[in-house]
Amino acid sequence: MLGEVDLNKNLSKKEYKEMMDVLAPKFSALQREARKKGLPVMIVFEGWGASGKGTLINRLIQPLDPRGFKVFTVQEENEEERMHPFLWRFWTKTPQKGRIHIFDRSWYRRVITEQMDQPMSQKKLASSYQQILSFEEQLAADGTLIIKFFLHISADEQEKRLKKLERSPETKWRVTKADWKHFKQYKGYFPMYDYMLEQTDMAWAPWHVIEAMDREYAALKVMAVAAKMMEERLRKMDRVKQSEKEAEKASDVPLDFQETVRTSVLDGVDMSLSMTKEAYKKRLAQLQDELMRLHNEMYLKRIPVVVALEGWDAAGKGGAIKRLTEPLDPRGYEVVPTAAPNDIEKAHHYLWRFWKEMPKDGHMTIFDRTWYGRVMVERIEGFCSQNEWRRAYREINQMEQNLTDHGVVVLKFWLQIDKDEQERRFKERMEDPEKQWKITDEDWRNRGKWDEYVKAVDEMILRTSTTCAPWTIVEANSKYYARIKILETVVRALKKRV
Amino acid sequence: MLGEVDLNKNLSKKEYKEMMDVLAPKFSALQREARKKGLPVMIVFEGWGASGKGTLINRLIQPLDPRGFKVFTVQEENEEERMHPFLWRFWTKTPQKGRIHIFDRSWYRRVITEQMDQPMSQKKLASSYQQILSFEEQLAADGTLIIKFFLHISADEQEKRLKKLERSPETKWRVTKADWKHFKQYKGYFPMYDYMLEQTDMAWAPWHVIEAMDREYAALKVMAVAAKMMEERLRKMDRVKQSEKEAEKASDVPLDFQETVRTSVLDGVDMSLSMTKEAYKKRLAQLQDELMRLHNEMYLKRIPVVVALEGWDAAGKGGAIKRLTEPLDPRGYEVVPTAAPNDIEKAHHYLWRFWKEMPKDGHMTIFDRTWYGRVMVERIEGFCSQNEWRRAYREINQMEQNLTDHGVVVLKFWLQIDKDEQERRFKERMEDPEKQWKITDEDWRNRGKWDEYVKAVDEMILRTSTTCAPWTIVEANSKYYARIKILETVVRALKKRV
Repeated sequence: MLGEVDLNKNLSKKEYKEMMDVLAPKFSALQREARKKGLPVMIVFEGWGASGKGTLINRLIQPLDPRGFKVFTVQEENEEERMHPFLWRFWTKTPQKGRIHIFDRSWYRRVITEQMDQPMSQKKLASSYQQILSFEEQLAADGTLIIKFFLHISADEQEKRLKKLERSPETKWRVTKADWKHFKQYKGYFPMYDYMLEQTDMAWAPWHVIEAMDREYAALKVMAVAAKMMEERLRKMDRVKQSEKEAEKASDVPLDFQETVRTSVLDGVDMSLSMTKEAYKKRLAQLQDELMRLHNEMYLKRIPVVVALEGWDAAGKGGAIKRLTEPLDPRGYEVVPTAAPNDIEKAHHYLWRFWKEMPKDGHMTIFDRTWYGRVMVERIEGFCSQNEWRRAYREINQMEQNLTDHGVVVLKFWLQIDKDEQERRFKERMEDPEKQWKITDEDWRNRGKWDEYVKAVDEMILRTSTTCAPWTIVEANSKYYARIKILETVVRALKKRV
Repeated sequence: MLGEVDLNKNLSKKEYKEMMDVLAPKFSALQREARKKGLPVMIVFEGWGASGKGTLINRLIQPLDPRGFKVFTVQEENEEERMHPFLWRFWTKTPQKGRIHIFDRSWYRRVITEQMDQPMSQKKLASSYQQILSFEEQLAADGTLIIKFFLHISADEQEKRLKKLERSPETKWRVTKADWKHFKQYKGYFPMYDYMLEQTDMAWAPWHVIEAMDREYAALKVMAVAAKMMEERLRKMDRVKQSEKEAEKASDVPLDFQETVRTSVLDGVDMSLSMTKEAYKKRLAQLQDELMRLHNEMYLKRIPVVVALEGWDAAGKGGAIKRLTEPLDPRGYEVVPTAAPNDIEKAHHYLWRFWKEMPKDGHMTIFDRTWYGRVMVERIEGFCSQNEWRRAYREINQMEQNLTDHGVVVLKFWLQIDKDEQERRFKERMEDPEKQWKITDEDWRNRGKWDEYVKAVDEMILRTSTTCAPWTIVEANSKYYARIKILETVVRALKKRV
């Protein structure tokens, strides 16, 4: 893409000022409208060293209300970041609805600077591109407006600018050895940038190449493009809002016997499996011993682990977590309970709150209910649209792939009990004053939707049992049996890795 | 995905008949509605050998009007097909609006059977998956409903069925050595199928796993799923139609100085380049000699070539094609002129008519105007929506990547003349009785949209100049210079490859 760009674009100071006087107030108004309508915006600046990213970002934010945007400077990963999948630091920085997040360099660092300094294998590079594409696609599909700028200058101009910076005592410090090294690699970077632009120029997140030889021209163009894209999107939001709502209403048109022909996973589960108390106690002690040892090794070898627990209400998730964590060093694990999302969480992509909690290398995070809420409760209660939960299978698979690519052990458990057993447990809880708090009206309401849940769970397990992150279905009518199966699965998985 | 499926599903003959009596007429009505509303449908059957694909397809088509569907049996590539990119045979078989195309095995053969029989490199396998995904995505985005079935049976069942077929003299011939070989590889196929399902289970083309142990159950489920998906889509089409139209109307909200800040490619072209007649004649003779030799070598080495010519009206495409083809053996090349699409072409994906014309190995196809019409005339005249032409950059890049992955040399030329030169040529043509036919009212109308075209061409060249298929901008104010530059570029590219 870069070879074709005409770099001789410029504006006189006078032209610049005249045009900015029109543009700046407009851009400012668009920010206010975006906040009001809840549009999240990500603006990415990539480009050559000394191409003026700092200056252009500075000019871009002049008209903006400082309470509504934030600028992130992306440098080398710090230690915390290195211990997570590489997109983790960007997932945690995605803007909530109505805010503008501006990135001075971005996730593209991975496939450019890092690749130049320390080339990765073709396979890893391809997977990094894949991850970047799915990151942007997921955010775009969720409604985030992504605006990507590439600031383009010639090698001569880059040299001129670096020398100028060096001449002045005030700016000399800004030119590092690395800058000159990169300058000497201009020709090597060129095809890499070209490839990057080509691979990631998607309709939902297109690149805008900025001819950055002339600062005035570049500053005006950056703001004009940003304003145009925001305006287009806001107008589209106005139009789409109504029609989408109508579309959702009637979007499930079932035939008469969908029930008969649904794919079943849970039907085949053997609910009679159980275990005596004696056998349980003996095996539990063995497994907990092993687990203690493995957790330690895992920590030393910096292997991160995610344990995801899903299952019917009263299926015994709490008890299983207790047995699982008893032998573990509390500095090395965390239990994350998942409730309904709060307001901040609702204003982000639904995976954002889980990305934040992902374990760093050597740690274990146990999720008591998970991101699978999207395709169960949110699907059934209509908290998200049909398009959204259908898309979620793929999005979840991609997130888990990101994790396992980074080396995370991902273990997912579905605790299966039958309807009679659930009723027995509900009643037991209600009769026990110490356990009454555990049972709410909502639990009974959910129980009323048992069949809908079966359908959703069947589809969920089918579509998200992947090679890298398979589901384990736990026959949980017997709590003893269930706990042992979970611990055994965890122990087996860890043994494979340490 | 497969490991979790409960295979113990069945229906009694009576249940089957009762349900089919309701379902079949409904499915039949849906076909009529799909034809009326112009919905193209692709139904894919994949699955284990002896899982009953033939039987199920047969039952599925019973209620259908035979004039509205077609069944394709996909076997090994024939010689013609091997000489094209692997998706070529499927692109040419995509259904036009209102028709149902059913595939007994499909493009997934590439990543399963072929991969099992003759494993390709990881890189090639990854690229095949990429191509499959973009094929389905492009068709889905264009409105084709894609329904994918995977017929699942156990290894025991497969063995039982093969033996049963062998026992009867009438069906014995159907069981081949390859069938038994595949049966013995059941365990090897299992993770491959699982991986395939996982990689290609997209929201816009999800897989439906069919428990195919019981024929009645499977037949009912296949038809019920197909009917449900068609019904959902048809209802959605009703709703979306109106709102989309409204959305298009106001979808371009330009700011005041888009013109000033647009990316320019053509501005930088040196229009003064020219050549004397004498130099031209000499060089032309040399190049044509070389070209003749290269065309021959290309044929022997089975290298396919695509030459794509775009440019302003009267920029000299015809003259250039004449000089290019003069030295070529007519059995080894074809010139494809591109006019406005006819009715059949309009009823297909816009790339379909170009896929059909792609050269087989060893041949050259010269396109006089091309698929880039999508982002020029169709964009400017509003023949496609903004979403459609924005998406097209990516789609075109993907198609060209498919071609170059197969080994095609793709050369794209933009013939650039300035506005004055065009006027001069138009007038010249009008005054010459032999050339008057070449100039129409439409040419003058297009000329009136010069600035809009400049903008579209700039963006087109920027977004579709890729590493594998770059644009060459030809300074064409001088016809001599232009022809020589085109021939030189072709010769250079061929020399690199033979």
